Amino acid sequence: MSKVVIIGSGNVATVLGIRIAMAGHEIVQVFSRKRENAALLAGQLHCPYSTYWTQISQEAELYLVALSDGALLSIGESLSLPGKLVMHTAGAVSKDVLLPVSKNIGVLYPLQSLRKEIRPFPPIPLLVDANTPVDKARIADFAGTLSGQVQEADDITRLKLHLGAVLVNNFSNHLYTLTEDYCRQEKIDFTLLLPIIQETASRLAHFLPRDTQTGPAIRGDGATIEKHLQLLHNYKNIKELYELFTHQIQQYRTGI
Amino acid sequence: MSKVVIIGSGNVATVLGIRIAMAGHEIVQVFSRKRENAALLAGQLHCPYSTYWTQISQEAELYLVALSDGALLSIGESLSLPGKLVMHTAGAVSKDVLLPVSKNIGVLYPLQSLRKEIRPFPPIPLLVDANTPVDKARIADFAGTLSGQVQEADDITRLKLHLGAVLVNNFSNHLYTLTEDYCRQEKIDFTLLLPIIQETASRLAHFLPRDTQTGPAIRGDGATIEKHLQLLHNYKNIKELYELFTHQIQQYRTGI
Repeated sequence: MSKVVIIGSGNVATVLGIRIAMAGHEIVQVFSRKRENAALLAGQLHCPYSTYWTQISQEAELYLVALSDGALLSIGESLSLPGKLVMHTAGAVSKDVLLPVSKNIGVLYPLQSLRKEIRPFPPIPLLVDANTPVDKARIADFAGTLSGQVQEADDITRLKLHLGAVLVNNFSNHLYTLTEDYCRQEKIDFTLLLPIIQETASRLAHFLPRDTQTGPAIRGDGATIEKHLQLLHNYKNIKELYELFTHQIQQYRTGI
Repeated sequence: MSKVVIIGSGNVATVLGIRIAMAGHEIVQVFSRKRENAALLAGQLHCPYSTYWTQISQEAELYLVALSDGALLSIGESLSLPGKLVMHTAGAVSKDVLLPVSKNIGVLYPLQSLRKEIRPFPPIPLLVDANTPVDKARIADFAGTLSGQVQEADDITRLKLHLGAVLVNNFSNHLYTLTEDYCRQEKIDFTLLLPIIQETASRLAHFLPRDTQTGPAIRGDGATIEKHLQLLHNYKNIKELYELFTHQIQQYRTGI
């Protein structure tokens, strides 16, 4: 078990903080510049908090820096933890941004969409990295106490997986958002679509998505596509996406 | 319990046929012009089959026509079942295409992506319609023996939900396909993305998608967007979608 300081109080800090506490590690302190957030998370983790960089405890072994990408880039101006193992949690930021903070640096990146208000927390694959094999093993061991799925991933691999997460999560979720808006506007019941959404996601565990594609685009069913486009007269965003996806799915099928 | 003839032998005919048999109805016959498919489905359903339109049994009460949209449009040339209740299963085709077949017509539309090889079958919301209240009630009762989720939906409502299914299923699945291709090409592990895909789908049961959007686009994180676009130099399809989604998510956020 490790002594840990959590730096940050947002979604990632909260969800990982709770996981770390539940795994039996000792959370020595929470740090956030926003007093209210610091107090809230410290209350959940039953530990003290600080709102001043200069008062960050030196008593821990691991420092988890769960801040925004922008804040990470200038962290060397605020934080110095020589001899400590310092990890950030960002998908698209090099571990090297931590070099001004310590010689021992690494990454613990949760490849999941984390929202502190959504319980239960989902399974969270953790991607780990560090600048020495010893620290990599240390972070991987720690990660293994938090998640059943831990893999090493260097800066570029992590960035590629982060890109993948944007494609499958952010963009699918935007499709859901537009579809929910459309249903509300047309007074139809969006929840009728939840089983097909769930099925589309679940079958990926057993089938390649290219092998399960269905629908008018891949069938080359121009009559149905035309009917759909007529329904979208007043839905500019959906129409743009409909046309681009239909074009791409048809091209993909024929291998153009 | 009803006596049913199944017309068709594709994914919808197979999945609904099995559901109908499992619900205890009597399947009198399977029809398909393709002998091999007819025999295969009849074997699964333990019933006789026919490959000639003229030999379709007159002994049933319900006729489920699970054919392609194109075949439905000309079904009046092949099939006449006066006095029988005839239903099709298509999302984007009016029930009126069945009027040349019988005066008693309706729809039993499964709002799900059905593939006969994917077991177990998922939950299947059924949308029902008919041209008289009596037949509507009869089809709804029948549907209730097959699914826990049955709703009435007229032609235009069904078409709108079919459009919704294309948006959330076909288009999300194309995103998954391109992402899986990308991972394979870049030698990274696509299965690491399955938990976030699953979570994105699951949380819709409790949260509106607009309230759970995350990622660089909605944060206005231009630096990360730039890094992602650089990775997509050789991925034209993904890049097109990335740019359109990022633009739309940012516009949506600011309400432009």
